[in-house]
Order: sequence, then C-alpha cells, then structure tokens
Amino acid sequence: MSERRRASIVEVGPRDGFQPIGPDIPTATKIAFVERLYAAGLRRMEVTAFVSDIAVPQLADAGTVLAAAQALPGMDAQVLVPNLKHAERALAAGARHLAFVLSVSEKHNFNNVRRTPMESVAEYGRIISSLPTGTKIRLNLATAFDCPFDGPVDSAATFALLDALVDIKPDAEICPCDTTGRVTPDRVFALLQTAQQRYPQTGAWAYHGHDTYGLGLANVMAAWQAGVATIDASFAGLGGCPFAPGATGNVSTEDVVWMFEAMGISTGVDVDALIPIARDGAALPGALSGGRVRDAITAAEQRAGHC
Amino acid sequence: MSERRRASIVEVGPRDGFQPIGPDIPTATKIAFVERLYAAGLRRMEVTAFVSDIAVPQLADAGTVLAAAQALPGMDAQVLVPNLKHAERALAAGARHLAFVLSVSEKHNFNNVRRTPMESVAEYGRIISSLPTGTKIRLNLATAFDCPFDGPVDSAATFALLDALVDIKPDAEICPCDTTGRVTPDRVFALLQTAQQRYPQTGAWAYHGHDTYGLGLANVMAAWQAGVATIDASFAGLGGCPFAPGATGNVSTEDVVWMFEAMGISTGVDVDALIPIARDGAALPGALSGGRVRDAITAAEQRAGHC
Repeated sequence: MSERRRASIVEVGPRDGFQPIGPDIPTATKIAFVERLYAAGLRRMEVTAFVSDIAVPQLADAGTVLAAAQALPGMDAQVLVPNLKHAERALAAGARHLAFVLSVSEKHNFNNVRRTPMESVAEYGRIISSLPTGTKIRLNLATAFDCPFDGPVDSAATFALLDALVDIKPDAEICPCDTTGRVTPDRVFALLQTAQQRYPQTGAWAYHGHDTYGLGLANVMAAWQAGVATIDASFAGLGGCPFAPGATGNVSTEDVVWMFEAMGISTGVDVDALIPIARDGAALPGALSGGRVRDAITAAEQRAGHC
Repeated sequence: MSERRRASIVEVGPRDGFQPIGPDIPTATKIAFVERLYAAGLRRMEVTAFVSDIAVPQLADAGTVLAAAQALPGMDAQVLVPNLKHAERALAAGARHLAFVLSVSEKHNFNNVRRTPMESVAEYGRIISSLPTGTKIRLNLATAFDCPFDGPVDSAATFALLDALVDIKPDAEICPCDTTGRVTPDRVFALLQTAQQRYPQTGAWAYHGHDTYGLGLANVMAAWQAGVATIDASFAGLGGCPFAPGATGNVSTEDVVWMFEAMGISTGVDVDALIPIARDGAALPGALSGGRVRDAITAAEQRAGHC
C-alpha cells in the first residue's frame, strides 16, 4: 500500500516498560537489556526518564542508564522529562534527545504532572528556550485519542493543543499517543493525516499505541498508511501508564518488527535476536507482558526441536 | 475510511473452536453456547461439521447440534463438509447452508482430505450438482496466503484454484482463509481487492484469519478496507486447525465486534453480552483461547467494582 520501505522503531521498553514494574530492576540488568536490544538492531530507545526520585524511585538511576546507552556507537538515546527542572537535570547528565510529555486530557495531565495542559505547553516553551543547540526533541501527546478517566478525546481538543505546541518548535518530532489502547484504526489514520496537512512545517510524526484491546498492530498499520513511519514499541509488550488504570500493554516490538519485515519494510531489527530478549523481559518479576509473536515463534521453535 | 456501516460476523467457535478441544464437550454444553451466542446477537454461525465420526469423534453429534441451532428464529446455521458423502449426510440432517473447504496448498489439502486441490475442486462440483434448490454455499479456501508446511502461498496458485471454483457456482460466498496467522494486511488487501475485480460475477466475499502473530484485527481491517464486510471470528478466540501445527488462535469475536462497533460499524452483536460467554468458552477444559477485549473489559469491570 506504500512505496516507503523503511520503518523506524523507537524501543520504549527500558523506560515505559520498566517504569511500572513494582520491584526495582537492578541498574546492571537495565543496562544489559539496553545493550542486548542494541545488539538486535535497535538504534533508538527511550532509555529512562528524569523524574522525581521520590515519586518514581525505580528510575533514580537515570543518569547511569543514560551514560551506558550513549556509550553505544550510533545509539539515539532519548529520555523522558516532565518539566524544565528535570530537563535541566537530563541535559546536565549529558542527554542529547529529550522527550517531553503532556496530555490532551485535563484530568490525565493533572494526574501526571499536577498542571493544566496549557500550563504544560508553557513549560514546554521554557524547556525549548533553554535547550543547547543540537538537542533533539520528541513531543509525546498523551491521551491524544482517549483518556482513561474521561473516555474519547475529541480531535478538536488535540488540535487546539497542537496549535499551541507546533509553533514553539516546528522541527520537533510529534507523537500522538493512544494511552488506553481504545483508539481504532480509522481515528489513528484520520488524526495523523489531518495533522500532517494542518502542520506542514512539522518535520516528523510518530505514533505510540497499546494493544490492550487487540488493536496494537491494526493501529500501527493505520499510522503507516497515513504516512507515519516512526513507531514506538516495547519489547515483550512491557509497559503501561502507572496513572492510567488498565492501560497495560504497549504494542510489542517483536510484533511490530515481525509485521513490517513480513511486508518487506525494513526496520533494521533482527526479530530472531529479539525473541530471547523479549522472553527474558516477560520473565522479569512483576512484568506485565503482551504481544503474540514471542509465543508464536517460541512454539514453532519447540515443534522444530521435536522433529 | 468507508461508507459501509454494517459488518456481518460469522461465529465459527462452535465448529472451528470446539473441534480441536481434546476432551469431548457435552452436546448440551455446545447447544447452550450456540443459544447464548444467538442471544448476544449472533445470527450466523458455523455450528458444526459433518465429517468422519472416527477421525473427528468430537463432532459426532453434528445432527443434534444443527437441529438445535436451526430451531432458533432467523438463525443462519452453516455446517462444514469436506466431501460429497458428508454433504449428503448434512443435507439429510436438514442443513440449508453448507461450507465446503479445500486448501490451495497441495500438502495441506492432502493432510486434510487425502486429495489434491484439483480433486477437491471436482468434488465441489459434484456437491454443487447435488444441491437442493435454495441451499446456500460458503466456499472456504484454506492456506490462501500461507501454509503451515510450505510457507507463503503465491497468489497465482490461489487465483488458479479460484478460476476453477468460481465458474462452478458463481453465487457462492468465497472466503480466502489465513490458516496460519502469518499473512500481513498488505497481502489480505491485495488478494481480496484483486479477487473482486477478477471475479465480478461472485456475489459475496468473506475473510477468515487468525491472531497467532497479533495480526488478527489488522488483517480484518485490511479485508474491510478491501470492501469485504463478512468476517469469520470465534468467541474467546477459540480454535485453530488440528492439521496445521501452531495455527492456534482464530481472531476473537469479541475483539472484532469491539473494533467494528467502536468505529460506528454495526455488527448486531452486544459485546457486553458476549464477554461472559467468551469467559466461559475460555474456561472449557482443553480450550486454547485468545483475544484481548475479554480480559480488558473484565479488568475494567473489576476496577469499577472496587471504586
């Protein structure tokens, strides 16, 4: 359906996947996963977040994980920051790619950062003003389609927020996120297509979705059909939002890679190398895993071993 | 993406879902599931198969199940038949809608019915010649995209078989089946679109897929985009082909219904009524279940109950 033959996967497991896991994952274990994912071909990852050590103690090792990730040649290590204070911490730790997150939904944004969305827009402006030259920015727009507290989000609200955000930094990469997994392919396609037409100055668009209702790959496909080739995914389907009840199940990296590669769309990722990493990720104590390809390939391997 | 606002679900759980379950399901239990699915709004089902009682003893109660299904007002009860002999048994038992299955793949067809695909085409011709007026026919084309033994199936092979089949009964409903779950949306769309152009005389097309690799809904969406609005699905994702190792996981009815209804496409099925039935189906001893919506809605209900 498309002439573009390359998709770019952003592996968000080390941040989005590890964050909701209750017991702390040892820093060395996190770094080992980042290095193994890199070895499987992943070259862009959200490796950690700079957030409150008190609110999110499991990410207090952000600086160490970031340094290890940035030591890998050609690695684009992105870190999540919720406000200017933590952006400054991230930059001081050597971060060269920040991901700022805000929510379209008032209630979800308040739960996340105790601000209104427009207050977060202003904070985004302050972060952009403070950036050293060459720092890359990913803008994550949570609840761009649906809110765990308020249900469906009208695209008018999403575009109202984007109107304010796009002007602040036209070359930022913008990623509308389906936080709950309840969006359907028609809405993903429509919003991403309209967004590209409405903001031609924006250089890059991405899509982040969940598989909670089985729509993970259907929505990734809709994003691709709308011309968006940068896709967030989490190995083993790890993840979810700790402030969005039931929003378990990021779309799994192995499922996304398998689908694209089967369509002849290169991801640069070796799915066979990814499977054992995903198995180990799913086996982490407290992990909420998802996806289908891991089990399908594991079952196929077991059958082959018995022939 | 479409102006059509109605999808037709063919519930295949009572046949495709129950068949691979090892322990026999009591006939009364099967009938109770059929009746509950009907009460949830499903009006077309593959309720059983007329096959060898020796090879498939778990479907030896086909006549009883069919009679119970046909007693439900407005129910379109379809039964699977592999050859003329069993088609005659089905018709003698009062069947008014037969589903004939053959495979594009030589090896898969031989495993299923000990015939070459062209021998099955000839058998299909004999069945059609023997049909009483008004009997409806569904033609299931297994391994239309991919074979568990031989891998990807070239669409040229699928069309070569269709060339022979379409002429035999132009008004049959034809359903290319993804037997392994390994087809991708691009190929589903291309094959269904080309088929409709190539055989304009064919009245109806359907799609049957599996969720083994997480592509269940993505492929249903591709079929819908190609203009195909009749979709096979199995409650609780029950099913798989006993002759296709690893082909577990029919796309689940609750996932398909949830997706269509969320897009404003009516299915006539009440997804909330379907969930407890799907839970009970998944709890059948020996069941291989799949799908995501059942667990997502169950989790949401449990959270609501705790608030």
